Amino acid sequence: MKKFTSVKDVADVNALVTEALVLKRNPLGYKETGRNKTLGLIFLNPSLRTRLSTQKAAVNLGMDVMVMNIDKEGWALETLDGVIMNGTSVEHIREAAGVMGQYFDIMGLRSFPNLKNRDEDYREDILNKFIHYSDLPVISLESGTLHPLQSLADLITIEELKTAKKPKVVLTWAPHVKPLPQAVPNSFAEWMSVADVELVIAHPKGYDLDPAYTSGATITNNQDEALQDADFIYVKNWSSYQPYGQILTQDPGWMLTEERLKNTNSGKVMHCLPVRRDLELGADILDGPNSLVLQQAANRVWAAQVVLKKMLETNFPIPS
Amino acid sequence: MKKFTSVKDVADVNALVTEALVLKRNPLGYKETGRNKTLGLIFLNPSLRTRLSTQKAAVNLGMDVMVMNIDKEGWALETLDGVIMNGTSVEHIREAAGVMGQYFDIMGLRSFPNLKNRDEDYREDILNKFIHYSDLPVISLESGTLHPLQSLADLITIEELKTAKKPKVVLTWAPHVKPLPQAVPNSFAEWMSVADVELVIAHPKGYDLDPAYTSGATITNNQDEALQDADFIYVKNWSSYQPYGQILTQDPGWMLTEERLKNTNSGKVMHCLPVRRDLELGADILDGPNSLVLQQAANRVWAAQVVLKKMLETNFPIPS
Amino acid sequence: MKKFTSVKDVADVNALVTEALVLKRNPLGYKETGRNKTLGLIFLNPSLRTRLSTQKAAVNLGMDVMVMNIDKEGWALETLDGVIMNGTSVEHIREAAGVMGQYFDIMGLRSFPNLKNRDEDYREDILNKFIHYSDLPVISLESGTLHPLQSLADLITIEELKTAKKPKVVLTWAPHVKPLPQAVPNSFAEWMSVADVELVIAHPKGYDLDPAYTSGATITNNQDEALQDADFIYVKNWSSYQPYGQILTQDPGWMLTEERLKNTNSGKVMHCLPVRRDLELGADILDGPNSLVLQQAANRVWAAQVVLKKMLETNFPIPS
Repeated sequence: MKKFTSVKDVADVNALVTEALVLKRNPLGYKETGRNKTLGLIFLNPSLRTRLSTQKAAVNLGMDVMVMNIDKEGWALETLDGVIMNGTSVEHIREAAGVMGQYFDIMGLRSFPNLKNRDEDYREDILNKFIHYSDLPVISLESGTLHPLQSLADLITIEELKTAKKPKVVLTWAPHVKPLPQAVPNSFAEWMSVADVELVIAHPKGYDLDPAYTSGATITNNQDEALQDADFIYVKNWSSYQPYGQILTQDPGWMLTEERLKNTNSGKVMHCLPVRRDLELGADILDGPNSLVLQQAANRVWAAQVVLKKMLETNFPIPS
Repeated sequence: MKKFTSVKDVADVNALVTEALVLKRNPLGYKETGRNKTLGLIFLNPSLRTRLSTQKAAVNLGMDVMVMNIDKEGWALETLDGVIMNGTSVEHIREAAGVMGQYFDIMGLRSFPNLKNRDEDYREDILNKFIHYSDLPVISLESGTLHPLQSLADLITIEELKTAKKPKVVLTWAPHVKPLPQAVPNSFAEWMSVADVELVIAHPKGYDLDPAYTSGATITNNQDEALQDADFIYVKNWSSYQPYGQILTQDPGWMLTEERLKNTNSGKVMHCLPVRRDLELGADILDGPNSLVLQQAANRVWAAQVVLKKMLETNFPIPS
Repeated sequence: MKKFTSVKDVADVNALVTEALVLKRNPLGYKETGRNKTLGLIFLNPSLRTRLSTQKAAVNLGMDVMVMNIDKEGWALETLDGVIMNGTSVEHIREAAGVMGQYFDIMGLRSFPNLKNRDEDYREDILNKFIHYSDLPVISLESGTLHPLQSLADLITIEELKTAKKPKVVLTWAPHVKPLPQAVPNSFAEWMSVADVELVIAHPKGYDLDPAYTSGATITNNQDEALQDADFIYVKNWSSYQPYGQILTQDPGWMLTEERLKNTNSGKVMHCLPVRRDLELGADILDGPNSLVLQQAANRVWAAQVVLKKMLETNFPIPS
């Protein structure tokens, strides 16, 4: 595995989930796999779960970790070519990524979309240029369009708790006060499409996701209908894909509550966090027995660890 | 030891000081005690000494450390329950602490008081909620009302240097330009009250500390009287407890100088740092032979290390 | 070696370069040299390359590293003596450095000039006070006047790639939109003056560097003449030394381009980075085969590692 930016970078998703669960039972069993290898974690945007879980995963594998919050500790990067750099950008991504390629063995990169220009965000310029100019194995820590470590952790969580062979999984839009990226729902839909689940996506009119990620899913604007007999309910806000980056409604009727869980199959409730209580998701659910949010967060470690392990084994095999 | 937030969390203070001094002579003697254990250091407020000394203590014990400046790298936390989170708070403390509970084995937390609402600060809501929702062993890195790692280091310093069986220790208020928390003086008074010392607290009228922490101490508004025959003088500014968080005076007459040391018993001068030179404390003293401030700072390592060692031994005993 | 702040702190520059190249071939050969030793990296100004390369070098030697961005995580330091600290400075450099001396075994310090008062910057007050009050072995991570780790990496790079016994090296000024420090050009000139090279410095009228650093160099205001038959061309902007810290010209005619390389001896082009593309240096050169900028950045690791190794061996010899 040279990069981990999408489910498409994974040869065998089932095998990856299985191996993650093996690591969960034996976190320190591969302390030599990453010995004397350096993971650079580069954040162009803030992070809590992703930073801590990935750092912990790397340490479990014996790696050295260097964290850099470019936005806070560093400086503005220029991403466009052909620009005379006489403005506020201090360094070009070609040099910044190239330099990191000299210091790291594997890079993790977080770069949010700006939600202004859809083509720009969906081209994944920043992520792709970091991959290209660093010439390193790169793990996305959430990019403009996808959040694969989160989705892998979500799939691990579903795999651990499912009772049906092919559970019904509902991704349902939730209200929010700020326009949020589509990365988490895109990514969740993409990963569910290759998993052995029935995926239903429910959202208000106008919130259709990029169809590139939702193939195989049933899409509806009727949340009640979607929730019927659901085994897992993934709650998440996103801004509209078209028109891009807009808040079209804040209808509180879309907030999931205990009451609405009644027609589900004792549905387990998921959210990637951070979550706005009583805005996106009822506090009653978050504090109740159906919430999986902390288990999802815990599984971020095993998602990151199995991906790092694969990358280490592929790119830096230990001589036998 | 499941938490270290006050002297009340310590079963045997003398034994703790003794063991800290053993660690000081043999810092690396317990490198296996913390092996493969993760310490998360969470700062809601800036830190220099506390961060560096605690990090070093943890590394001496073989721990892995993850530092997170939530205020700088993260986001605003909501601490109240029952709030519809449609404002600026991005995440609730229930989820943030709960998530950290998944990644850390022990947590250190710094959270200053806001000095606006006394009840709120003295309830120690943030610290208590982090303890409750993380379900981790937690070390206070200074909270709204107390700074126990500092006080333990102070007691270690006094223990190292005392010549009398029961030395006279004076805590004396000093002028400052900003309203500062009462955490350090509260905490110092609390620890001295269980130590074998005679404690005198001197401050201008109106600066009485919460009596919950000053039992057993002689309290006076006459600094000269207090300093008479003092063996140790702890200099510290604090804002008023009642009315709460106010600057009642900036009287420069309360600044300790070499001149004022004359009536002491060659009194050793202490301060937790950072110190405002020639405002709180005369530069002549800080640069002179009576100052213990660097030794106190050095002892922060052994204070943190002995607390971490106890917590590791209690919560993660190494199988024999 | 007790400090590394200038080429003058190095007893044998050739031997240092040779040993750096040995480390480059065997990065992990001295993992025990720094075991249980703590490197504190203190940044009063932002850093990317210096932080990451020095951190990596230290880890290669088995050291523990603590990074502190004082400007971001800490607080304003007072550097002057005799000041009543009733303003915005929270701590005096005497205490801050003194405390760090308790926690670190070796300190790295970055402190930029303010470019307002030349005497102040060139006195290197901050660096010297950190050295004095910490009483530690100190490595400059770029100071007001010099950047020795960069220059050592530059010399390593020239040593690796030179074909002539005594190559012609040109340091040429480049345009920029902001007034930059003179530390890199001062330092490069200082190191070249003891290396076996012919150094020519080219800059517009008024940009003369402090003669203390340029002895032995040919100085010209004619870039074309300077570039004639050059083997290495070091491109760098700096603000004027006299009047101090000014932008005297932004003449784009001084920007190096492929066209201008024609009269050189297939001149290799160097820059310390970050570089402003098409302002300081043509993108055609940066993306072409003559650029050494990434190799220079890579060599920062070996420069830092050889200096740390020397410091460890001098100050903390391993008993045989």
